[in-house]
Amino acid sequence: MKAIGFVRSPYTDTAQVPKGAGAEHHAEGVLELRPEYEQGLLDIDGFSHLYVLWVFDRAGAMSLIAIPPSDNTPHGVFATRSPQRPNPIGLTVVTLLRRENNKLFVRGVDMLDGTPILDIKPYLSNVADSDLRRGWLDLVDPRR
Amino acid sequence: MKAIGFVRSPYTDTAQVPKGAGAEHHAEGVLELRPEYEQGLLDIDGFSHLYVLWVFDRAGAMSLIAIPPSDNTPHGVFATRSPQRPNPIGLTVVTLLRRENNKLFVRGVDMLDGTPILDIKPYLSNVADSDLRRGWLDLVDPRR
Repeated sequence: MKAIGFVRSPYTDTAQVPKGAGAEHHAEGVLELRPEYEQGLLDIDGFSHLYVLWVFDRAGAMSLIAIPPSDNTPHGVFATRSPQRPNPIGLTVVTLLRRENNKLFVRGVDMLDGTPILDIKPYLSNVADSDLRRGWLDLVDPRR
Repeated sequence: MKAIGFVRSPYTDTAQVPKGAGAEHHAEGVLELRPEYEQGLLDIDGFSHLYVLWVFDRAGAMSLIAIPPSDNTPHGVFATRSPQRPNPIGLTVVTLLRRENNKLFVRGVDMLDGTPILDIKPYLSNVADSDLRRGWLDLVDPRR
């Protein structure tokens, strides 16, 4: 695994990132790819939303049990977004605002400045809202 | 990066996996975690859908330009789901049917049998359908 680029974000400390149930991510940032990967962005401009896979490069030691800020109750790490995962990979859906060569200007970053990017994928489809259940999170953050 | 478990899937060859625009993934399979990670599944049962991050362990050489089966036109790899990515990580949304200890029985697998799993995350929210644009894919597979 290698960094294909880095995130430019207004956040330099995890304390600045909105967290917990219902946290909204409107921060703008840039996904800056290494120039040698720019060709891989051909035709990405037509997609409104992208998945970004990235590395929690400043996370603490892995823990199989996580206590999210939302409900202060222990849950299995795979039932949470905790950074302290067996493989420290983060996943964020961002809105693509525009592209300039090897830079994607996006809204919705929740990563720290300088975060290594592993992959970018197009967001293609939703789960039907009527089918979606969100376990413990639905209890602390009912959907509107 | 290490495998936290493996996918049990009906597919043993990529030719068997439904591909292209509009391909539907109803196949059932099992996400079988290594026993030492079972504790990380606590409370996952309440979620209807999960993200699975996995390794394209049988993909060919990386190519920044991909020609998807849907439209036979070259696109940048980051605007496609091509397996031949700089970091060969796959992302699949599956429906959780039930859990038995370290095994998650799911619907919607598009991985090959024996695929290494890197991470499992809860699926929490959708993009608003009215905001979603899917670039070249909307041209060959208009949404219903």
